[in-house]
Amino acid sequence: MTTPTKAQQLYEGKAKTVFATSNDDNVIIYYKDDATAGNGAKHSVIDEKGILNNDITTIIFQKLHEHKIKTHFIEKLNEREQLCEKVEIIPLEVIIRNTIAGSMAKRLGITEGTDAKTTIIEICYKNDDFGDPLINEYHAVALDLCSFEDYEFIKKTTFEINKILVNMFDELGIKLIDFKIEFGRNSKGEILLADEITPDTCRLWDKETNKKLDKDQFRLNIGSLTDAYKEVLNRFKK
Amino acid sequence: MTTPTKAQQLYEGKAKTVFATSNDDNVIIYYKDDATAGNGAKHSVIDEKGILNNDITTIIFQKLHEHKIKTHFIEKLNEREQLCEKVEIIPLEVIIRNTIAGSMAKRLGITEGTDAKTTIIEICYKNDDFGDPLINEYHAVALDLCSFEDYEFIKKTTFEINKILVNMFDELGIKLIDFKIEFGRNSKGEILLADEITPDTCRLWDKETNKKLDKDQFRLNIGSLTDAYKEVLNRFKK
Repeated sequence: MTTPTKAQQLYEGKAKTVFATSNDDNVIIYYKDDATAGNGAKHSVIDEKGILNNDITTIIFQKLHEHKIKTHFIEKLNEREQLCEKVEIIPLEVIIRNTIAGSMAKRLGITEGTDAKTTIIEICYKNDDFGDPLINEYHAVALDLCSFEDYEFIKKTTFEINKILVNMFDELGIKLIDFKIEFGRNSKGEILLADEITPDTCRLWDKETNKKLDKDQFRLNIGSLTDAYKEVLNRFKK
Repeated sequence: MTTPTKAQQLYEGKAKTVFATSNDDNVIIYYKDDATAGNGAKHSVIDEKGILNNDITTIIFQKLHEHKIKTHFIEKLNEREQLCEKVEIIPLEVIIRNTIAGSMAKRLGITEGTDAKTTIIEICYKNDDFGDPLINEYHAVALDLCSFEDYEFIKKTTFEINKILVNMFDELGIKLIDFKIEFGRNSKGEILLADEITPDTCRLWDKETNKKLDKDQFRLNIGSLTDAYKEVLNRFKK
């Protein structure tokens, strides 16, 4: 197959831009250098972030394919662009927490760094106006976001993805604290893992030192985001 | 059996006080006239509220017993007191929403009064310090509040209770918009419906006029709480 050519812009998000292509079922996703935190309250442009994230998410989605997880990813085209299957994003932010950190620690009063007694999945309604509130399957159906069956499939797939990612990062000397993923529906109605999996969307702590190798470098102003992301990429390439 | 006699106070809540009795497995619950809203931010003493709520919850728990729902309720002792089985309250607020109203309407941006596409159950962590946040079964287990099995039992029982209550209120010309219940564990480890079911803990709208026959009279300052509660009680007694 020849690679479809880039057409008009469909959507510009906080960290990526999506373009139509000459093939209706494909899109090109362009990784930008923008970093935001606190629902857009904090914003910077960080040199090379898009390049690093395109690289990292490519490696991770390819690993997930080896484990038979269906994703929107087709191929990396160049430094900042990927060819992906076109999906309609299901407006859910699906979060796994292996260790308590971030918003959940604050919301429920648990010390950051506590190992969770059980792996926690949180499904939030992806809606900036309402601050991406936590919901459950009944809200999802009442809001017409998905069916009960879709919700169960998403939960089950997310737990599978977590297992794969925990092992994958463990081999790199990294503890996967938590991550956020999104799913989309392709033209055939199949639900695929979409969006990205990068240090923008995961909390990654060095297993030995607990050093944060993720966007908390930027959120908390504690060091160089680029150095942390390069460190993750280099461990994959070793 | 002779009724156990009242002993020392065990706990004083916003609307009720719980006393030990001469029998270790029983407590006496005293219904106060206090009304609070907004997590205690608004507080009043409303003449007769405790008497009305003791009456209403007694009728409702007796009806639930007829439908084989296990509750802590044993018998009404006098105007303001009930004899109940002693339970340890599971710190979950279990909410059913048949029609969208109140905090969920605000939180998810849905118009109040919308019929929910599906009956919604919401389970919150009963903890005033954190504003009774919504949780799911994974949080409940991680916070050591209950097991996955207990959580499922509570969900299933709550849906059964909803069915019974919807029909019961419908016969009184009242629409059961939503309600909050709590469960507790007795000395044998059984999970029982506990606390109360009253216009303090339900939203009740007249079927014809949509008049609010519940604590929203007080929350929203729209009329006489006592008159609304008397109206509910009178319909039961017809």
